[in-house]
Amino acid sequence: MNGAENLLQTLVAAGVEVCFANPGTSEMHLVSAIGNSGRMRPVLCLFEGVASGAADGYARMLDRPALTLLHLGSGFANSMANQHNARRAHVPLVNMVGDHATYHLQYDAPLTSDIVGHASLVSDFVRVSESANDLAVAGAEAVRASLRGAGRVATLIAPANHAWEPAAQAVAPPEPAGLEAAGETAIEAAASGLGSGSKTALLLGGRALREKALDAAGRIAAATGARLLCEVFPTRLQRGAGRVAPRRLPYFAEAAMEALQGLEQLILVGTRAPVAFFAYPGKPGWLAPEGCEISTLATVDEDPLAALTAVADRIGARGEAELVAAAPEVPAPAGPLTPVAIGQSLVRTMPQDAIVVDEAATCGMGIFPATLQARRHDWLTLTGGAIGYGLPAALGAAIACPNRKVVSLQADGSVMYTVQALWSMAREQADVTVVILNNRSYAILNIELARVGAGQPTPATMSMLDLSRPDLDFVALAQGLGVAATRATTAEEFDAQLAGAMGRPGPRLIEAMVVQQMP
Amino acid sequence: MNGAENLLQTLVAAGVEVCFANPGTSEMHLVSAIGNSGRMRPVLCLFEGVASGAADGYARMLDRPALTLLHLGSGFANSMANQHNARRAHVPLVNMVGDHATYHLQYDAPLTSDIVGHASLVSDFVRVSESANDLAVAGAEAVRASLRGAGRVATLIAPANHAWEPAAQAVAPPEPAGLEAAGETAIEAAASGLGSGSKTALLLGGRALREKALDAAGRIAAATGARLLCEVFPTRLQRGAGRVAPRRLPYFAEAAMEALQGLEQLILVGTRAPVAFFAYPGKPGWLAPEGCEISTLATVDEDPLAALTAVADRIGARGEAELVAAAPEVPAPAGPLTPVAIGQSLVRTMPQDAIVVDEAATCGMGIFPATLQARRHDWLTLTGGAIGYGLPAALGAAIACPNRKVVSLQADGSVMYTVQALWSMAREQADVTVVILNNRSYAILNIELARVGAGQPTPATMSMLDLSRPDLDFVALAQGLGVAATRATTAEEFDAQLAGAMGRPGPRLIEAMVVQQMP
Repeated sequence: MNGAENLLQTLVAAGVEVCFANPGTSEMHLVSAIGNSGRMRPVLCLFEGVASGAADGYARMLDRPALTLLHLGSGFANSMANQHNARRAHVPLVNMVGDHATYHLQYDAPLTSDIVGHASLVSDFVRVSESANDLAVAGAEAVRASLRGAGRVATLIAPANHAWEPAAQAVAPPEPAGLEAAGETAIEAAASGLGSGSKTALLLGGRALREKALDAAGRIAAATGARLLCEVFPTRLQRGAGRVAPRRLPYFAEAAMEALQGLEQLILVGTRAPVAFFAYPGKPGWLAPEGCEISTLATVDEDPLAALTAVADRIGARGEAELVAAAPEVPAPAGPLTPVAIGQSLVRTMPQDAIVVDEAATCGMGIFPATLQARRHDWLTLTGGAIGYGLPAALGAAIACPNRKVVSLQADGSVMYTVQALWSMAREQADVTVVILNNRSYAILNIELARVGAGQPTPATMSMLDLSRPDLDFVALAQGLGVAATRATTAEEFDAQLAGAMGRPGPRLIEAMVVQQMP
Repeated sequence: MNGAENLLQTLVAAGVEVCFANPGTSEMHLVSAIGNSGRMRPVLCLFEGVASGAADGYARMLDRPALTLLHLGSGFANSMANQHNARRAHVPLVNMVGDHATYHLQYDAPLTSDIVGHASLVSDFVRVSESANDLAVAGAEAVRASLRGAGRVATLIAPANHAWEPAAQAVAPPEPAGLEAAGETAIEAAASGLGSGSKTALLLGGRALREKALDAAGRIAAATGARLLCEVFPTRLQRGAGRVAPRRLPYFAEAAMEALQGLEQLILVGTRAPVAFFAYPGKPGWLAPEGCEISTLATVDEDPLAALTAVADRIGARGEAELVAAAPEVPAPAGPLTPVAIGQSLVRTMPQDAIVVDEAATCGMGIFPATLQARRHDWLTLTGGAIGYGLPAALGAAIACPNRKVVSLQADGSVMYTVQALWSMAREQADVTVVILNNRSYAILNIELARVGAGQPTPATMSMLDLSRPDLDFVALAQGLGVAATRATTAEEFDAQLAGAMGRPGPRLIEAMVVQQMP
C-alpha cells in the first residue's frame, strides 16, 4: 500500500464518498488510489471552480464534506472563488491538493508556488503531510476539522512522494464533531428579551433556516408577536407550502433598512448582524436602526433547533406556527417572460422537495417572492458574493440528493464563470434543470453604476456592463457541453418547456429570454 | 476630478492604453473613469482568467503592460493562474483591483477577503492606495514596478472611496525602466569559456529568443561550434525561415537529459538551469549532466542582445549565423489529421509575422518541429504550466498587434479553463484563428499516469483522464460564444479550412479531430 491508498481508505472510512476532481501530473497516485478504492465516486470537472462549487452544493444538502482533488497552487487558485462562497456558507469541505515531491521543490519548477499561502486565504485548516504514513493522519484531521461547528473548509496538501511512497499505518476515523450547544445565558436572555414588550425580530440564518428550527421560531413568533427575518443570502432555506416563512432581508441596503425599521431588539440565530453588501457614497453600512439592541441566541456554529426549542419552552410558546398555505390553482402564465411569470411556472410544475439553486441576480428578486407558495423545497443562495457558484452547486446538490429535482436559476453574466459545470452534469446525468435568465447584460451593475453615483456613462463605460455584441447563445453552449437545451421567449413557451423538464430526469437547459422591470 | 479619473490620467500618460476588464460594484468609478478617459481601450472579459492571460499575451508582444481590472479578492483569485504564467514569462502586467471602501471593511461583508494576501502570491509589487490623492501615485509606482527588468506583475488595490473621493494631484509618469546590463565579469567569463575547447551550449531564454539576440548567438555558434539550445517553455521565440533556430529542450525529462548529454559547459542567457517539470519516482530533477559547468551570461532581467553581441565581438565572431532555409514547396497534406499534417498546413498557409500561441500540449510536440521552416513568426508557450493561458494570450496578442495574424494552437482539455475568451475575440473582432486539437482526453495525463508508475488504471481512474462521455462539441461552443467555426476530420479538410481562415481577418475556430501517435 502506498500513502495515497492509505489516505483513501481513511477518507472512505470517515464517510467521505464523493470526489470532485481536476487532477494533474502531481496527483496521479491520488487519482489511481481513488480509481482503485471502489468506494470513492470520482466526478471529473473541467475547471477547478466547478469542483469547489460542487463540493459546496453537496455539503449544503448533506451536512458532510465532499472532497475536491486539485492540482498545485494554480489549480487551487482556480477553485478559490467558490471556496470563498463555501466558507461564507459555513459548510464542511475537504480539499486534497497535490504538490511536487518534497525534494523537487528546491528546483522552483514552473508550477511551483506557495500552496499553503493559497490555501490559507480560504481555509480554516491547512495541513501539509510530513511523510507517506502521515498523509492519512493529515487526511483524518482534515475531515475532523471540516466538521467543526456548522462546517469549515479544510485543506490537505499532499506532496507527490508521500502519495507514492509505501505507507501502512491504519488511521482511526475522526471523532464526530458538529454543532455546539448555545449558551444557557443566551437562551435565558432571548427568552426574557422576547417577554420585554419591545419591538423584536428574530433574524435567522445558517441551520436556523431548516424546517424544524423554522417551526420553533414560528411558534415563538406566534406567542410573542416577534417578527421573523431571514438573512439576505441563506446557505439553505427550507420553504414553500406548509412551512414557516421568515421575511428575507432585501439585497439593496435601503430596502433592508426599511425592513428593519422600528425594531428595538434583534435576536440573531445562526447569523450575524446585517450589513450592506457594498459601501455607497454617503450611505451607511450598518443596517439595524439606531438604538436597536442586538443579541445572539445561537452563533452559526451552535445548534439553532435546540436553542429555539429551549426558548419556545421557556416562554410557553405552545401554539402553532403560522405556515404558508399551498398555492391555489395557478393558471399558466401568458405574455412577456418576466421573473414573476417564471416564478408562477415554478409554482405550477416544480415537484415536492426540489432544490433551487439561486444565482439569478436581479431576476431572482422577482422569482423568490413569486415562489413562496410552491411545493416545499430548499432554496440555496450565493453566500459569499463570488459569482459562478450556481451551476457547480447545482451539480453537487444533484450528486448529494439523486432523488430530488434540482432547479438552477442562473443569471447570464455569472453563469459564464463556471459554465463548464454543464459538461459534468451531462456526464453524471445529474437531474438538474438549468434556467438561464438571459437579459444580455450585467443588469446588477447597471443598477449599481447609478447607485454609486459614478456619473453619466459613455458608450465605452457601457461596453463593460453589456453582454451583447455578440449575443451569447446558451442553447448552442449547452449543446457544446452535452446538455439538451431549448429557448423560451414567452411565458407560454417557458411554462411548457419547464413542465417538460420537470417531468423527466436528467440535465436540461432552458434559455429564458427575460423581459425585466428593473427593481 | 475624483481619484479614479486622476489615476486613469496617470496611467494613460504612462503609456498604458488597454484594460482587460471584469469589474464589479466596487469598481464602478474605475469603470466610469475608463469610459470617460477616451484613451484607455476597455476590453470586457467574461472571466478574470481571460483578463490576466490577455494582459500576458499583450505584454509578450509589446514589452509594456496592459491593465487588468478585477473585482476584489475573489475576482483576483480567478485571475491568478494566468498571473502565475505571466510572472513565469517575466512580462510587465499591472492589475487594478477594487476593494470595499476603507470604512466598510470593519463589517466583514460577504465579499471581504485578504486582497493583499491574494495579490502577494503572484505579484512582485503590491500597493494599496492610502487616499484618493495617493491612488494615482500608487498607479504610477505600479507601472514603474511592472517595467523592472524584463517585467514584473504589479498589483494596485483601489478602495472604492479612494476612487470616488475628489483628487487633484498631478502625477508625473514613471521614469523609464527595463533590462539591466549584464556584468562585465559574466561577459568575460562567457567569452573565455567559449574559447576553452570544452563541449559548450548556450541555453537561451526570455528576450534572448528575439531575432537579433538569436543572430548574435548564431554568430557565436558558427565561430565556436557551441550548440544553441532554447528553454523548454519560451515566453516568445522568434523563429521560422531566415532566423537562427536553437534546439528547443524537450518537455519530458529523459529526452531533455539526452539533449544535454555530453555537455561540459552550459552558458545561460535569459534563463535558468534546466530542471524537470515534475518529479517522477526514482528519476532526477536536475537535468544537466554531472560535472557540467553552468554559468550565467545574462539573467532574464539583463539585456541578452548587448551581452551576446559583446561576447561575439570579444571572440571575433564575424562570420554569418546559420539560418533556417525557407520551406520548399510543401504539398497539401492528405489522409489522417496528425499533428505533423497540421504543421504542414501551417507551413503552407501561415502568413509572415504570424503569432502562434501554443497550448497544444501533447499535439504541440509534433507541430513545433514541423513548422521550423514556416514563414518567420513568433511562438508563445505556456511558461508557468497553469493551463488555460492559450485563448486569453491569443486575444491579448491580437489586441497588441492588430496587423498580424494570430494562430492559437489549443489542446481540448486546457481550452476549457478559459474558453470564455472566444466571446471577447468575437466582440473585438480579434484576428485569431483558433485550432482546437481535439483528442477527447487529457492525453498528457494518460502518459504521465504511466510515467509515474501509478499502477494499472481502473475504469474509475480513466474517467478522471478522459474527456469523452459526452464529447465536447467545439463548433457549437464557438457558435454559442459568437465565433464562426468548422470541424476538420482529415488533413485535406483541415488544410482547406486553415487556408480560408488565413485568407481573411477576424476570429475563426477550427475543431481539428486529431489522430495522435503518443510521443
